[in-house]
Amino acid sequence: MSVLVVGSVALDSVETPLGSVNGVLGGSAVYFATAASLYTKVNLVAVAGTDFPTEHIQFLAGRGVDTAGLEVIEGKTFRWAGHYDFERNITETLKTELNVFADFHPTLPPGYRDSDLVFLANIDPELQCEVLEQVSGASLKVVDTMNFWIRGKGELLSRAISAVDIAIMDESEARLLAQSQNTFAAARSILNMGPKTVIIKRGQYGAVMLSGDDHFIAPAYPVYDFKDPTGAGDSFAGGFLGYLDQVNEFTPQMLRQAVIHGTAVASFTISEFSIDGLRSLTRADIEKRYYELQRCTHFEDKECNL
Amino acid sequence: MSVLVVGSVALDSVETPLGSVNGVLGGSAVYFATAASLYTKVNLVAVAGTDFPTEHIQFLAGRGVDTAGLEVIEGKTFRWAGHYDFERNITETLKTELNVFADFHPTLPPGYRDSDLVFLANIDPELQCEVLEQVSGASLKVVDTMNFWIRGKGELLSRAISAVDIAIMDESEARLLAQSQNTFAAARSILNMGPKTVIIKRGQYGAVMLSGDDHFIAPAYPVYDFKDPTGAGDSFAGGFLGYLDQVNEFTPQMLRQAVIHGTAVASFTISEFSIDGLRSLTRADIEKRYYELQRCTHFEDKECNL
Repeated sequence: MSVLVVGSVALDSVETPLGSVNGVLGGSAVYFATAASLYTKVNLVAVAGTDFPTEHIQFLAGRGVDTAGLEVIEGKTFRWAGHYDFERNITETLKTELNVFADFHPTLPPGYRDSDLVFLANIDPELQCEVLEQVSGASLKVVDTMNFWIRGKGELLSRAISAVDIAIMDESEARLLAQSQNTFAAARSILNMGPKTVIIKRGQYGAVMLSGDDHFIAPAYPVYDFKDPTGAGDSFAGGFLGYLDQVNEFTPQMLRQAVIHGTAVASFTISEFSIDGLRSLTRADIEKRYYELQRCTHFEDKECNL
Repeated sequence: MSVLVVGSVALDSVETPLGSVNGVLGGSAVYFATAASLYTKVNLVAVAGTDFPTEHIQFLAGRGVDTAGLEVIEGKTFRWAGHYDFERNITETLKTELNVFADFHPTLPPGYRDSDLVFLANIDPELQCEVLEQVSGASLKVVDTMNFWIRGKGELLSRAISAVDIAIMDESEARLLAQSQNTFAAARSILNMGPKTVIIKRGQYGAVMLSGDDHFIAPAYPVYDFKDPTGAGDSFAGGFLGYLDQVNEFTPQMLRQAVIHGTAVASFTISEFSIDGLRSLTRADIEKRYYELQRCTHFEDKECNL
C-alpha cells in the first residue's frame, strides 16, 4: 500500500509571538509526506526550484518518501511568508512568490498511478482535477482546499469535490463554500456536493467529521506551548491517510481513529517551527497522545480512566 | 438536596439573524433555575421590579423553584438588550438598565443557608463574596463571572474564585483573567488561584474542564438551527449542578457526566428565544442527547456504535 500526495514544496518564512524562522522547509506536500511516512510509503508529486537544498530531499527520502515525482526545475522554489497573531487568531500572508510553482502541472510517474490512497493538497483545483483523471482507480481520494480557490475557481473546485471520497477543509473555508454560518449545516451542504465524508478542521478546537447522518466530534490535543500552526492541517491529513493506508479499512470506526491519529500528529507539528516537531517523532509518541485523547473525552460509567 | 442560585432576573430584548424578541423572560438566575429544576429543587435568590409579570414567577414556582428568595421591590426589573452577529461571532450589548438590580444585596431566607450546592451566577463579585460568607457549609460552591468584573473588580473576583470549588467562565474571560492566549494555560492559572476545578465554556466548540492534571474536553451538541445563544452558559450551569445535586457525588467521573448534561440542556436553550427551549423539555430529551454525544465522541475499538 502507498499514499500519493500532490501539493507544494516551499521555503517558508514565519513569524509568531514565540519566534520567527526564515526560508525553512515547508509546503503542503512536505508536511503531509513527513507525517504520513510515519505510517506508510508516500509517493510525492510536487515541484521545487534549483535553489531547493538537497538536504531537504535527502530528509524526505530518508523517511521512505518516494521523491521520483518531485520535479526540480530551473528557477526559484515557491516561497511563502506569514505572520500569526495568536491574540486575534489571525493568519496574515506577508508574501507569496509562486516561482516554479506558477507553471506546475503535476505528472505522475508510472508507478504512482496505482496508489490506493490519494491526497490532493491545497492547490489550484484545475490541477486537482488533472490528477483525479490520472488516478481513477484509487480506492480513497481526498481533497483539501482554501479560501483563495473557493473565491476564484469555485466551479472547478466543486468538480474536484464531487469526484472525491473525502473533502477536508478549515471551518471558515467550509462556511464560505457553503454560504452558511453554521458549521454542521455547511458540512452537510458540502456532503451534498458528492463526497461520502466531510472533515472540517477547527484548529485549536479539533475537527468534526460527517458521513451521512453520522457525526464525529474530535478534540484537539491540549498543547500548552504551541509555537507555529503552519502545516497543522497538512500533517493532520498525513496522519489521517497514513493510518488509513496502514489499516487498509475505511469503515466509519477506522475513519474516526484516523482523525485522532491526524490530531495527535498535528499537535507535534505546532510545537515547533517548520517540520521540526516531526523529525524525531515516533509511532509510540503518537499512540501515547491517542490514548490521552481517549481519556480526555470519556464520560461513560465504566471506561473513564482518570 | 437542593441547589441555591444567586443571580439576575431580567426582561431581555434580543436580536439575532433569525429573529428578535422584546421584554422576554431572562436573567442568569432564571436560566439556571429553569434548567436545574429538571433535576432537583432550586432555591432562587434575585430581585425583580413590580413590573415583573406574575406569570413568570408562577412559571418558576410551577417547576418547583422556591421563589421565597426572589425580592420584588418597587421599581423596574433589570433590562438587557443585545444583538448577536453570528457571522462575526460577536455579542453586542445594546442597553443595560440595572434598575432594581443596582442596589441589590442578596439576603438568603433561613432555609436556604443549608443548600448543599451553590451557584453564584455572573453578578458583582462583591455580592458573590457576601453570599459565600452566608453559605460556608455548602459542599460544592461554584462561581461564574464575565469580562466586566474581571476588568473592574479583579481583586474581589479573585477572592470569590479562591473561595469556591469550581470556577466557570467563557474562554475569552478566562484568557483575560489569566492574561494568556492559551486556553489550557489560562485554565491552569485559574486553578492556581484556588478552586479544585475550572470549566472553560467555548460556545459552539463545547467546554474543557481541568481538575489538577486531569483534562476533560467536551463537545457541543451539533445544533443545526440555533436561534439565540442568550442563557446558554447559565442553563449549562443549571444542568451541570442539577445533575450533580441529583447524583450527590462529586467524583471526576460525575463531574464529566454533569458537563455533558449541561451541554445537552444548553443545546435546547439556544434552539429558541428566551427560556422557550426549556419549557417543555424532559429528562428523556436530555438523556437522548447525552447518549448521542457519547456516540459522537467515541473512537475506541469496541464501543463505537455508529
